[in-house]
Amino acid sequence: MDREESAQRIERDIETLSGSDYTLTDEAIRRYAYTQEYRNTIAYFTRELEALGFTVEQDPVGTLCARNRPQGEPVFGIGSHCDSNRNGGRYDGTMGVVTALEVCRLNAELGLDLPLQLISFLEEEGSGFGQMLLGSRIIAQRVDEEDLRERFRAIDDGRSFWDHAAEAGYEPQRWRDCAHVLDDLTGWIEMHIEQARVLQDTGNRIGLVTAIAGYVHADVTVTGRGDHAGATPMDLRLDPTLPLAETIAELERLAVAAGQGTVGTVGEIEVDPGIINAVAAQLRFSLDIRGPVDDAYRGVARDIADFAEEAARRRGMRAEYRERQTLPATPMDERIVSALEEAAKATGEPFTRMHSGAAHDTMCVADRVPTAMVFVPCKDGISHHPDEDADPADAALAAEIILNAVQALARA
Amino acid sequence: MDREESAQRIERDIETLSGSDYTLTDEAIRRYAYTQEYRNTIAYFTRELEALGFTVEQDPVGTLCARNRPQGEPVFGIGSHCDSNRNGGRYDGTMGVVTALEVCRLNAELGLDLPLQLISFLEEEGSGFGQMLLGSRIIAQRVDEEDLRERFRAIDDGRSFWDHAAEAGYEPQRWRDCAHVLDDLTGWIEMHIEQARVLQDTGNRIGLVTAIAGYVHADVTVTGRGDHAGATPMDLRLDPTLPLAETIAELERLAVAAGQGTVGTVGEIEVDPGIINAVAAQLRFSLDIRGPVDDAYRGVARDIADFAEEAARRRGMRAEYRERQTLPATPMDERIVSALEEAAKATGEPFTRMHSGAAHDTMCVADRVPTAMVFVPCKDGISHHPDEDADPADAALAAEIILNAVQALARA
Repeated sequence: MDREESAQRIERDIETLSGSDYTLTDEAIRRYAYTQEYRNTIAYFTRELEALGFTVEQDPVGTLCARNRPQGEPVFGIGSHCDSNRNGGRYDGTMGVVTALEVCRLNAELGLDLPLQLISFLEEEGSGFGQMLLGSRIIAQRVDEEDLRERFRAIDDGRSFWDHAAEAGYEPQRWRDCAHVLDDLTGWIEMHIEQARVLQDTGNRIGLVTAIAGYVHADVTVTGRGDHAGATPMDLRLDPTLPLAETIAELERLAVAAGQGTVGTVGEIEVDPGIINAVAAQLRFSLDIRGPVDDAYRGVARDIADFAEEAARRRGMRAEYRERQTLPATPMDERIVSALEEAAKATGEPFTRMHSGAAHDTMCVADRVPTAMVFVPCKDGISHHPDEDADPADAALAAEIILNAVQALARA
Repeated sequence: MDREESAQRIERDIETLSGSDYTLTDEAIRRYAYTQEYRNTIAYFTRELEALGFTVEQDPVGTLCARNRPQGEPVFGIGSHCDSNRNGGRYDGTMGVVTALEVCRLNAELGLDLPLQLISFLEEEGSGFGQMLLGSRIIAQRVDEEDLRERFRAIDDGRSFWDHAAEAGYEPQRWRDCAHVLDDLTGWIEMHIEQARVLQDTGNRIGLVTAIAGYVHADVTVTGRGDHAGATPMDLRLDPTLPLAETIAELERLAVAAGQGTVGTVGEIEVDPGIINAVAAQLRFSLDIRGPVDDAYRGVARDIADFAEEAARRRGMRAEYRERQTLPATPMDERIVSALEEAAKATGEPFTRMHSGAAHDTMCVADRVPTAMVFVPCKDGISHHPDEDADPADAALAAEIILNAVQALARA
């Protein structure tokens, strides 16, 4: 395999898909279902894959499926998503689909004729309807019809997903048939930029994902008592910023103590009334607690909820913990990870096993198919931003590793 | 003195000034310069005072001055302000002017003929132009012409204070003459609701203010590094919420340790980007540090600035402390406070000496005139809110105490 040529093709694809036909703004990559720019992106992959002899279809809501075997025959799945967040970069998702396309090209060029199915999932980022992993959740039937008909509404105009899909020529009423996308898969590998700095900071070019972190998203509301900041003595205050402060410090302690990749973050803090000369009456802060080991991060979530409630109580206030969403960790398939590891070793390039802290479509695929993921570094861990940067040479290396792993798995 | 009749008159005044002619909304008291509702309020006091034989004028920008002696003769000043904050209650400021009016009524009824000047300052709350104590700052010449011509702009339409004042028929070009408002004052007493819960919680009906707290208003900006909340291990983070947490806890410790009425508050917290699944890149929080003893609260401000910078540095981040505004404490005049204390004792009602944590127009009067303040309780310390509540009987008690103190001072 000519890794340099692969890198050039990948770079050309990325460059093309950063052009004005493929993004709604020239200040960032911005594309989502069912905009013309998103359709152009799907059309680009369709042309390239048809040129390689693939049959290209879209599922009833618009997820792209391309295969080099007739339906019903076993195929190995590769791909990612090609929508972006609204202020996105060139690489998140798209580089994974481009790398899968490169695997298909190499498969043809080298005459391997491995049975492949490329998938580009709809609406991973949620930019269209505020719903992350939407295409793969529909495929995994993790939504219901009410969600699609009523609850999921376009950020731009408030109209339903259902109406938008129908207007774009799709058949949302057939959404249950989207499940068939996974019917023939014997395995699945998604390549993605890491979206963090572990690979960069440890000097690795490839990350082999062993699990995708599960998470708890929650909010804590602390109710104190609004008072004049100048006129209220320290000992007559019920100031909710103090339980907040204690909880932030404790969350760090708990996450570090839990280890095993557990992380905890307070990302949102809303103070009411939030003016310089008033002791806050109430505040809300968010908790994002994750990890690849369910018991570990869930323990932190339980402990921090108790801690916040007790910290407020100790000061005569009330804290209320409310879970927004929770999702278990998704272990990757050890057989596929091992095949990728053998292939990575063979290249002589530095790689590491790691977990994914971010969520990916692969979590939904894993409901029914043995899966794995391959990460490549992105500069300074920046993603979801126009400054996002990644090296096509790393993607070419990933393409080679994926192709060799799929070949090894097919032989086994 | 018939305290019950005083209370009834005060209640009737307050009730009248809560009617639809005197507030821009029926959900709160909302009046500010130079709205029709504010003019109606000034007109009400003008009528009542003229009926008592007072000469009523307005200074060149609209502060109301009413006197029962010709200009040039010594008078004792009493009053407050009758504008409100935008979501205000019936009592803040207005009850002080109403109580001063009641002092004038009693002075006439009892045939005391004490020389009095009632002042109702313009724009104490800053609802019109975002500038607190504006009328009294103009009188104290704590502004410059550029402020009035250019910098101070209406919240509603962005036009300058100067234009609004001129359009309302005032003479902003004569703003330096506003200083004459204080020329003949031999002393000044402002009555105000406490805006905190000290009087209520200690069972006192009257607070005699010995000093108005000085303050430091500042902001601290902590710059960390924005990262994916799931994908960034705990030991690779630069999370600015942690120095925030440590600083909030330390501020409480420092304020309590400083004692002497020192208080410290974090009222504003702004997290950037402020989303659940991102480690914050940066955050800003406000500091409001006050007290009646300059060395004490200023020491806390210095120490917390150092602490925040060091807390950030220890974690590889940067914190920057920036002062917005600072104002020294204003001691009240002991002779007037003692006269008030004697008068309060004579009533047999519970009272206490205390300091004011909130700022008041009296701070500006004190530049040139011996001053004092009298507080009455407000329910649960609530102010700047439609739920604000205070007892006209307490105001009547204050009127009696003020009148007797002024009489004693005149005799001395």
